[in-house]
Amino acid sequence: MSEQKFDIIVVGAGIAGLTAALYTARQRLSTLVISADLGGQLLLTEEIQNFPGFVSIRGFDLIKRVEEQVRLYGAKIVFDEVTAVEEVEGGFKGATSTGAAYYCDALILAFGKSPKEMGGPGEKELKGRGVSYCVICDAPLYKGKRVALVGWGAHNYENAIRLRDYAAKVYWVFPGKKPLEDELLAEVVSKVNVELVPYSMPAEVKGSKRVEGLVVKNLKTGELRTLEVDGVFVEMGYVTRTEFLRGFVELNENGEIVVDKLCRTSRPGVFAAGDVAGMP
Amino acid sequence: MSEQKFDIIVVGAGIAGLTAALYTARQRLSTLVISADLGGQLLLTEEIQNFPGFVSIRGFDLIKRVEEQVRLYGAKIVFDEVTAVEEVEGGFKGATSTGAAYYCDALILAFGKSPKEMGGPGEKELKGRGVSYCVICDAPLYKGKRVALVGWGAHNYENAIRLRDYAAKVYWVFPGKKPLEDELLAEVVSKVNVELVPYSMPAEVKGSKRVEGLVVKNLKTGELRTLEVDGVFVEMGYVTRTEFLRGFVELNENGEIVVDKLCRTSRPGVFAAGDVAGMP
Repeated sequence: MSEQKFDIIVVGAGIAGLTAALYTARQRLSTLVISADLGGQLLLTEEIQNFPGFVSIRGFDLIKRVEEQVRLYGAKIVFDEVTAVEEVEGGFKGATSTGAAYYCDALILAFGKSPKEMGGPGEKELKGRGVSYCVICDAPLYKGKRVALVGWGAHNYENAIRLRDYAAKVYWVFPGKKPLEDELLAEVVSKVNVELVPYSMPAEVKGSKRVEGLVVKNLKTGELRTLEVDGVFVEMGYVTRTEFLRGFVELNENGEIVVDKLCRTSRPGVFAAGDVAGMP
Repeated sequence: MSEQKFDIIVVGAGIAGLTAALYTARQRLSTLVISADLGGQLLLTEEIQNFPGFVSIRGFDLIKRVEEQVRLYGAKIVFDEVTAVEEVEGGFKGATSTGAAYYCDALILAFGKSPKEMGGPGEKELKGRGVSYCVICDAPLYKGKRVALVGWGAHNYENAIRLRDYAAKVYWVFPGKKPLEDELLAEVVSKVNVELVPYSMPAEVKGSKRVEGLVVKNLKTGELRTLEVDGVFVEMGYVTRTEFLRGFVELNENGEIVVDKLCRTSRPGVFAAGDVAGMP
């Protein structure tokens, strides 16, 4: 159990969190960044072409550059997850999942969004052992294998194309009649290894050490069907995990932390930035 | 007199305007950027150390990189000043000071703010070569050097503190008896390297290649005095040049264009971004 006091604690080490830390550390405020990982959603992207200053850069390379910059000004980074925050005398306390406690004068919340989970049995247990939330990161691992894609909407067009070009078989699971508009869908299914599984949602991930199958439920008939797959790609969008902040700072209807133009939350001394922040 | 129609017109070519153009052009929307100059406030900064991804980069180099990126996707840039905008059938029209007219489906206003200038000889010539309009950006470059701070009012409390903690000597120039309320001022001058220069305003910036001094005029006696400094920080506030937009889009009390979270102004099809945008 460690206890340390900083001027600033930044929760999150994606581009928003690291940029905040860059500013505070450069202004000679002792700065601690706490994050489960480095890079956040940047790591889900192979190649970034829309970050000003770089015609093309890998997400990993960009985040390493910013990390270097932040460390240059003396910011510290610990890999841990903040699970509770509270106001204490003279500042704030952040408690982490490993039992550590850190103290600060001002708190910057910048932990972004997390992928939406399916929610049934087996998902958590098999995360990283066949359950993936990032087609672009993990598709190459499923060359010649059988996978399920759970998700719908335009952003899944590229995911579907990518998976079908690696995998031997792709089951595409979605709750409606179709997962995409006709024209794009036609392009995806032009390769015969894609099987659409409409009106369906995942019920359970099967497998002991690794994923062995995905049970899906037909929403019209209630019927269960087991898809024999080696991987399940969950691409249902992102959620904001701010429940632990309810009552501490104001949240909006999307669960985002409400900020004003200066990134101030409803609680003096607490700021939010990046995807976790929103308007009233 | 030229007349051309684009999907998007971006007014302003600072980092906000060019980033907007990068996004629109990359989404295959024909994009025209209209700006008096390239770079905006970035050009006022000698060395940028707080842009994520670059430990250190000159403002000019950063903006050239983004310009290259924007042109890669086919955006056009014209150097001209938009002096009037109006809604016309099927979109918007921007008229410029050279008499040109451009048309678009959607308009992005991103022409930033301009720092208030001192107005005397030498200022323009030595901009970015010792004359800075941003203490927070450039103070770290003056470690152990001699600087003048020109400005007054509460926002200069932090500027003064910051400068005195970096520089060997700070001359603080202001037109009244004191630049700040007593209590804050006492804190600033508690360090002996701060010298107040009251009842004074700048008259001329001296220097050939770089700033070598600031001539100030005593408003009571008319006497001129040369402060031997390596840097002149002009912190007299910013002006938002949005008067020509009054009645077209909602402005707030600071003259900033009011936007929501999605950068939408009060007029559908018109967006604003960067320093020119503000909250209600």
